Amino acid sequence: MDKQHHEERVDFLPGTKLGIIQRRDVFVFSTDAVLLSKFASIPKRGGRMIDLCAGNGAIPMMLTKRTDAPIDAVEIQEPLVDLALRNMKNNGLDKQVNVIHQDITKLHGDVAWGRYDVVTCNPPYFPMTVNERDRNENKTISLARHEITCTIDDVVRIASRLVKYRGKFALVHRPERLADIMSALRTYDLEPKRIQYVHGKRGKEANMVLIESMKSGSPGLKTLFPISVYGEDGQYLKEFKDHYESW
Amino acid sequence: MDKQHHEERVDFLPGTKLGIIQRRDVFVFSTDAVLLSKFASIPKRGGRMIDLCAGNGAIPMMLTKRTDAPIDAVEIQEPLVDLALRNMKNNGLDKQVNVIHQDITKLHGDVAWGRYDVVTCNPPYFPMTVNERDRNENKTISLARHEITCTIDDVVRIASRLVKYRGKFALVHRPERLADIMSALRTYDLEPKRIQYVHGKRGKEANMVLIESMKSGSPGLKTLFPISVYGEDGQYLKEFKDHYESW
Repeated sequence: MDKQHHEERVDFLPGTKLGIIQRRDVFVFSTDAVLLSKFASIPKRGGRMIDLCAGNGAIPMMLTKRTDAPIDAVEIQEPLVDLALRNMKNNGLDKQVNVIHQDITKLHGDVAWGRYDVVTCNPPYFPMTVNERDRNENKTISLARHEITCTIDDVVRIASRLVKYRGKFALVHRPERLADIMSALRTYDLEPKRIQYVHGKRGKEANMVLIESMKSGSPGLKTLFPISVYGEDGQYLKEFKDHYESW
Repeated sequence: MDKQHHEERVDFLPGTKLGIIQRRDVFVFSTDAVLLSKFASIPKRGGRMIDLCAGNGAIPMMLTKRTDAPIDAVEIQEPLVDLALRNMKNNGLDKQVNVIHQDITKLHGDVAWGRYDVVTCNPPYFPMTVNERDRNENKTISLARHEITCTIDDVVRIASRLVKYRGKFALVHRPERLADIMSALRTYDLEPKRIQYVHGKRGKEANMVLIESMKSGSPGLKTLFPISVYGEDGQYLKEFKDHYESW
């Protein structure tokens, strides 16, 4: 692949000196990734983590600000794997973060089944329509946004196999899909334990939900006070900015 | 039953001139009942409603501030049925609200199966422990608070049979039980459509959840901005008070 032909840019991950190569034509990280990186539990000591649908590696990169645990990062799409590999190398994170180029539904010996303390995932959000399935244009963006290669059921089933007994699975998704998510979690013995909604503005509906479940956990879900992002002036609220940029 | 031997008092339902007889020894309505009465959808025109686990009738009484639709109110416990009947009579609501003394799991010809536009329920919140099952003291309070006569599964199954196609079921419960609730709703073809959390104070975990589902509805859940109740001074927040007392 000739990288010169793509428009790459380097952004800093919020509140860090970690530069991340992004390509608007294929994938850029979003608020969702940042908030999930903050929301997820991290291993107490030692332990290991794995990020599914890792894209250009934004979540594993931010997790390194919180833990020294080794992190596996699984991404299906070659152009994003290429960015992720270079992002780890450029930031000296290639020892801690192991990028795996694979379809999450086809993982075999490349991961440590049932041994992760925490699994994270910022998956494609939108159910695939016939329309999506048929069109070929901008396939990379489409794969990253739609449930073409992994559905909620896929993500949850695989997370459940990866995580150890009493380990955690932290997911960010759209609140519209909560019933599907809850249903899948219960199906695969992941008990919802902690949930937090994100509202674009105070008074408006939530547009994001962070949910952490525990493998074979006992029932009992904590609903944290939600995060609001923008003020009436369209700027980040101070408390959001403080949260967003502190590690 | 000799009413003179019980400590009765008359309270006003918030923001109304509806006096409600309460007995602290058996049951008093709570914020939960008020917020559910506001949160529930009401029939567009004509139609009918039913309230399950109606207690002393607080929810049906408040619903009469929002609709002229006839309302059935089902309560299992005789002392509460007695209060509910007198509450309707005293407020001239006995034509609109039909109090039914029955276990919700034993309803037969006394209700209009599959014909209600909206079902409401503020059920017992706490799973029954062996401890609860064994003790006899203060049985009425215990029945109203614990899942002795009706579990989440009972409430949802029966609501699903009562409501008409595309009708609504509005429930208030503890957020800890959300996964159980979601799971039961899906089991009985009630699709969660609208959810709102209540936080005692800003920044604290939610202690109540309002959830409305639709019979045979299509997936897609709206998460409303949450309600916060108390300010730092321990008094009702102004916006809460305004909401709480307006009909």
